[in-house]
Amino acid sequence: MDFTIRAATLEDCKDISRMILELAEYEKASDQVKITQRDLEQDGFSKNPFFHGIIAEVPEHHKSREGHTKVGYSLYFYTYSSWKGRAVYMEDLYVMPEFRGKGIGKALMSKVSQLGLAAGCTQLNFTVLDWNKSSLDFYLKQGCWDVTSDLGYHCMRCEGDALEHLAQGDL
Amino acid sequence: MDFTIRAATLEDCKDISRMILELAEYEKASDQVKITQRDLEQDGFSKNPFFHGIIAEVPEHHKSREGHTKVGYSLYFYTYSSWKGRAVYMEDLYVMPEFRGKGIGKALMSKVSQLGLAAGCTQLNFTVLDWNKSSLDFYLKQGCWDVTSDLGYHCMRCEGDALEHLAQGDL
Repeated sequence: MDFTIRAATLEDCKDISRMILELAEYEKASDQVKITQRDLEQDGFSKNPFFHGIIAEVPEHHKSREGHTKVGYSLYFYTYSSWKGRAVYMEDLYVMPEFRGKGIGKALMSKVSQLGLAAGCTQLNFTVLDWNKSSLDFYLKQGCWDVTSDLGYHCMRCEGDALEHLAQGDL
Repeated sequence: MDFTIRAATLEDCKDISRMILELAEYEKASDQVKITQRDLEQDGFSKNPFFHGIIAEVPEHHKSREGHTKVGYSLYFYTYSSWKGRAVYMEDLYVMPEFRGKGIGKALMSKVSQLGLAAGCTQLNFTVLDWNKSSLDFYLKQGCWDVTSDLGYHCMRCEGDALEHLAQGDL
């Protein structure tokens, strides 16, 4: 099947928002999604964007059952390792279920890697849920390694009231 | 003990580089540090910086045994959650051993939280090594939670030849 990978534009935010929800449903967490199309437009397509995106698109005659031609996406941004320097972080990698197994996910990930290398990055980082064995196997097959299993890194988070208290210095 | 927290400048890169190495030694990984003072200067203090920094400084009469007045730092940058939106990531938080227990680490973390909230972030994220129980306890006491233990997030990485192959799409 033909498909193209291209940079996301403001006009893609509606489809990105739809696919973020589809991915969250797959991850059994759709109640966690607070981001709207408008947030994506503001945060990704104004000056000093918080993220960048790429879109996988199929020709009109291959459109999905619901009529979508934008069938996959990745959101990424640049980060920094105080040991290794510039890095690129892949926040999401998603391909609609009926378009899987055609190399679209690999092509999206390949594009993020290209963009990272071009920006001087030496690492591509991302997270995966430990129960998502098919994704984990896919990533390991691409030569990625599990920093949490191999080195013991744990992701930590502060949010909501705890973040407010921390900022006020009154904990 | 008096101390001040302020934004890092180009002139701080020598001390940041020194403290990155001290932190890596504490984490038993000093052979992993490839970043030099010059990398920090280029990547953090030119147009579109890859990170930001803050410095903890003590008055001259409280300087360290080796004569340092810059005794702690944090590096951070802005990221994005496709569920929750703008987030701030704390790459490093470090206080020199002889200056611990005086609230400097908490003040640095509080400052990163303030900066994150001011930029519209709803999350502060970072990683901790699972054997580093004293740091983990410190973070949990600040109201942070362990996303890896609680939700099963694993950090994944691609680098070196594997990243080149991925970018070339020939794996």
